[in-house]
Amino acid sequence: MNEPQRTCAILAIGDELILGQKTDTNSAWIADRMTQRSARVVEHVTVDDDERAIAGAMRRLAGGADVIVCTGGLGPTADDLTRRSLAQAMGDALVEDEGSVEQIRSWFAGRGREMPEANRVQALRPSRGRSLPNPNGTAPGLAGRIEVDGRGCEVFCLPGPPREMRPMFETQVEPVLAFEGGRVVRTRMLHTFGLGESEVARRLGELMARDRDPLVGTTATRGVVTCRVRSQASPSEAEAFRGLDESERLICERLGDVVFARDGNAEAPLESVVLGLLRGRGERVVVAESCTGGLLGEMLTRLAGSSDVFLGGWLTYCNEMKRVQLGVPEDLLSEFGAVSKPVALAMAHGALRAAQTAGGADHALAITGVAGPGGGSEGKPVGSVWIARASGDGTDDARLFRFGGGRSAVRQWSAVTALGMLRLRLDGVRTPLLGQIEPAQDD
Amino acid sequence: MNEPQRTCAILAIGDELILGQKTDTNSAWIADRMTQRSARVVEHVTVDDDERAIAGAMRRLAGGADVIVCTGGLGPTADDLTRRSLAQAMGDALVEDEGSVEQIRSWFAGRGREMPEANRVQALRPSRGRSLPNPNGTAPGLAGRIEVDGRGCEVFCLPGPPREMRPMFETQVEPVLAFEGGRVVRTRMLHTFGLGESEVARRLGELMARDRDPLVGTTATRGVVTCRVRSQASPSEAEAFRGLDESERLICERLGDVVFARDGNAEAPLESVVLGLLRGRGERVVVAESCTGGLLGEMLTRLAGSSDVFLGGWLTYCNEMKRVQLGVPEDLLSEFGAVSKPVALAMAHGALRAAQTAGGADHALAITGVAGPGGGSEGKPVGSVWIARASGDGTDDARLFRFGGGRSAVRQWSAVTALGMLRLRLDGVRTPLLGQIEPAQDD
Repeated sequence: MNEPQRTCAILAIGDELILGQKTDTNSAWIADRMTQRSARVVEHVTVDDDERAIAGAMRRLAGGADVIVCTGGLGPTADDLTRRSLAQAMGDALVEDEGSVEQIRSWFAGRGREMPEANRVQALRPSRGRSLPNPNGTAPGLAGRIEVDGRGCEVFCLPGPPREMRPMFETQVEPVLAFEGGRVVRTRMLHTFGLGESEVARRLGELMARDRDPLVGTTATRGVVTCRVRSQASPSEAEAFRGLDESERLICERLGDVVFARDGNAEAPLESVVLGLLRGRGERVVVAESCTGGLLGEMLTRLAGSSDVFLGGWLTYCNEMKRVQLGVPEDLLSEFGAVSKPVALAMAHGALRAAQTAGGADHALAITGVAGPGGGSEGKPVGSVWIARASGDGTDDARLFRFGGGRSAVRQWSAVTALGMLRLRLDGVRTPLLGQIEPAQDD
Repeated sequence: MNEPQRTCAILAIGDELILGQKTDTNSAWIADRMTQRSARVVEHVTVDDDERAIAGAMRRLAGGADVIVCTGGLGPTADDLTRRSLAQAMGDALVEDEGSVEQIRSWFAGRGREMPEANRVQALRPSRGRSLPNPNGTAPGLAGRIEVDGRGCEVFCLPGPPREMRPMFETQVEPVLAFEGGRVVRTRMLHTFGLGESEVARRLGELMARDRDPLVGTTATRGVVTCRVRSQASPSEAEAFRGLDESERLICERLGDVVFARDGNAEAPLESVVLGLLRGRGERVVVAESCTGGLLGEMLTRLAGSSDVFLGGWLTYCNEMKRVQLGVPEDLLSEFGAVSKPVALAMAHGALRAAQTAGGADHALAITGVAGPGGGSEGKPVGSVWIARASGDGTDDARLFRFGGGRSAVRQWSAVTALGMLRLRLDGVRTPLLGQIEPAQDD
């Protein structure tokens, strides 16, 4: 029952990674899979194509981990040094693996080509190690064992290209990670929109204590504050889920209406939830954008399948476009200015009206603001943005926000907040959102 | 001349990174900037929000690097432990930094809010360290010095959000990296659009030799391949510039019409050049977007001052919007499909026509394609995109592209390629662009 979790380390190898010419996406993917398998990831490391650096990192990590997964450096060229480095870290010598030579030869044969002599080096493995078949490329993986102070660590070396690495990880590494009867690690994410990260933390209070199980942490990504809950001390899956359920209940109790989703799409949770809610109701949305110039439409179409619910929209960057395309009355523009509540509402209602000729929409979102750095005034400083929603049932909602952080941030916050306002409507909740200054917040 | 390079290490901090819930893009960005500054990056490491792990990694890396840059863990919540970890690694205690309290307070005041008490913890710094101002967020950075075996290492801790971290790195870390030792280092960038990075490298040939001075390297960012030329062995500025001029001449000779700008805005060179060319001619542009959903408009408005030249546009995601808003004839849609040359051209001409009521535009760009992952067919596989330009002088241009890399990449390439097509028109050059399959390329 108290067998420890497997501790794992991830080592990415390659000059292009260490120089920052390429972003390493493999390590995050592997870490996620390891965590799902209840392993505890302790460190990710990236080193360049240098035998001493690679072997050194392997030995150091082997001192603190049960399993190391390495990616990269298994190609056929002079700067692919993972094979030699693993042998060095194991205190072993390289030998040619007959099976691998055959596998590489037949990989080329399948493409009507002969194996270039340069690829033969890819069949080398430490004499006490194993080759791991790679069905999607020429580079076999390697498995070996490094002993440090009498303690053994399993090392797996996989090729860098994700479409070769991932299936090899799934079939050849994952089975090693699971510990029957050990502790079970399960995680849950709760996504919120509308509060700042510090306010979320204040409300969560002692739920975020570092010694609590499940452990609760937060991260903020483009306005969405995600609470990550991690149960890691339970002997069974059922008990882990009980702990997660109880934490979820407490979190929802303290955060209320700003919680909009559990788990799901971690990269774009708000977009994905809004699309899902619309799709579930068979409703469609149009947008009318001024200062965001298309960013809201771009967000709504970032995920596949948005054509079910997104009709299109109008980029009315100049006043003439607002007037002609959306029918915003000239006198509203001249009396209140383009960044005003009447104009934001007129844009939203105008978009809803204009969409009727194209099949009709159920909701329209409009954004008009001062993204800066120029264009601000005393009454409407840079960062002032009116966002309006109008819906086919006759309801509407217009709010003034003050966003900071420069042009790009003001635009990002504007678009994501418009999505957040639509989500409030779809979930039937009303709450002020971060940055809102009008209507004034009651609490 | 032989002064050693600065050696650098990068430490990313965060549970969400170690668990693989989020991909670390900061480390690659920092590594790239360090490399451009002639520093040698030796290792990237990621650890979780754990004081012992963070402090341990800092001390270990300090043993082998002159500079460590850390990101993350500076937020206001209980799981933000970078401040305490740095103090521990320095053998120091935390004190409150008066200036930082004021900065955080005024950051909130600028948004019409009071500083939550929770944010006060962000003003802590090691007593022998410094706070680094953060103009774009509440978290100040930290700078300190770790001594290991009598050897000092400068440590910088920056916040995790890229839009806060990047400007702080540029203004507060980069100056520490340069080791010029009497040599004059001058750099130049030449931006190209239309060729892949490997083709640029092939044409540059021996100009990219690693021992050449000036040194020529390439980086690719969202379709723009930038040649970075770096003169670093000249005794005088005049001589450095002579070397840069000569390299520029050779590069332009080999790359031809795809070079569109020198130096200028490194973050958005193509957007900035297109806006500048339009502004110089007093011309205006509108957009008609289908599969990109607003991304092209968003790119055109990313830089300040775009209202001089960008009128607005139409997001015609569904066919009805194409028909009603842009007047694309029904029979073109049914005969050729939405992703076709006639429809792309009809969208561009329709946008130009519709803009007349709003003051008139000189150019229209239209994009219609299959971004995927669904929606592909044998004749029009995922990644097929028609991009059209129509101009007020009666000229037009329509090209079919095949882009790879998934939905997001297809959309990015589509929008940036539309900008690239407009740039060709404004510069009066004609050349095939990367990914173009129709009209077929002659060369």
